[in-house]
Amino acid sequence: MSHPERDTRLSIVDAAERHFREIGYQKTTVADIAKSLRMSPANVYRFFESKKAINEAVLARYKGELEAVLRGIADGPGSAAFRLREMLLAANRINEARFADQVRMQEMVCAAMEESWDAIIGHIERFDAVLRHVVAQGVETAEFRAVDPGAATRCIRTAMIRFHHPLLMAQCERMPGPTIGEMIDFLMAGLLRERP
Amino acid sequence: MSHPERDTRLSIVDAAERHFREIGYQKTTVADIAKSLRMSPANVYRFFESKKAINEAVLARYKGELEAVLRGIADGPGSAAFRLREMLLAANRINEARFADQVRMQEMVCAAMEESWDAIIGHIERFDAVLRHVVAQGVETAEFRAVDPGAATRCIRTAMIRFHHPLLMAQCERMPGPTIGEMIDFLMAGLLRERP
Repeated sequence: MSHPERDTRLSIVDAAERHFREIGYQKTTVADIAKSLRMSPANVYRFFESKKAINEAVLARYKGELEAVLRGIADGPGSAAFRLREMLLAANRINEARFADQVRMQEMVCAAMEESWDAIIGHIERFDAVLRHVVAQGVETAEFRAVDPGAATRCIRTAMIRFHHPLLMAQCERMPGPTIGEMIDFLMAGLLRERP
Repeated sequence: MSHPERDTRLSIVDAAERHFREIGYQKTTVADIAKSLRMSPANVYRFFESKKAINEAVLARYKGELEAVLRGIADGPGSAAFRLREMLLAANRINEARFADQVRMQEMVCAAMEESWDAIIGHIERFDAVLRHVVAQGVETAEFRAVDPGAATRCIRTAMIRFHHPLLMAQCERMPGPTIGEMIDFLMAGLLRERP
């Protein structure tokens, strides 16, 4: 893609994000997005085949930011347990700031869950990959028990769903505990070797 | 409540359940339920102040059945780990049979989540109580580590939400693993004392 084309693509994603946040995903049309950019809808369609594809690009950007933070922690200093804990906290913090109490943002996630399942699976697989990398390091250095890193990662991700899933975070707020700290401690107890 | 009154109450709950399952919660009116029993709506309102209250009674019956199964396992034979595992599997099996792929049943749960949060909290608290009883026994006999039974129970219940929550079971089916068996094994590793 040439520079001007990349710039146009980016400004479409920016305009769409603004509309989805302010007006809502369902109420926004491709014509609205085009109009705000003083563009024809046909020009938008040169870059994105549907509103669904634009939503995927908006969400891909959010997910890309989260994944970059997680990779930064994974590649940073500290024990495997420390980095795993920081990653699980960061995913909660970033998704909470972005989605909790933000009905419009949740609408975008709902639409993606209905229309863009492959994109969601892609995100889950990248999330798992960065977690698994740290779990595998902890197993290699015998900081963790000899668990299967793939299975342990899927269990940790699933156990944390109430703290990471953009829609559940809000729904579960009124449920009786645990705190995210208690939950991570509990999961770590299953990973760490017992101290004599 | 006298016998005839109890019978009337029960037949209202039965009729409502049939309607909710077949026509859906939203589309069913109190008048429909009354009509199917050859009763006046006013007579139904003598027993239930609203459709919401009838839904709570239908769901309370389901939850009562599940809770009785869990209490039976808790009070039955076997190690704490065995009984805990059986309880987590039973809750999945019973909710899966009742709610998975049953859009009408899920509609009843959705309505309860919006209108009857106290009833849901009540169920969660009873679910926690029966789990906590077994976790505490495992701690007392030193089968489990010296965890706080209350906190550990809340973590287990939250970690299992993808396998127990009537709405998530269906949504999460297409997500990459773990199996319920892998998940329970992972949680048990955090509870059980390490064998030398």
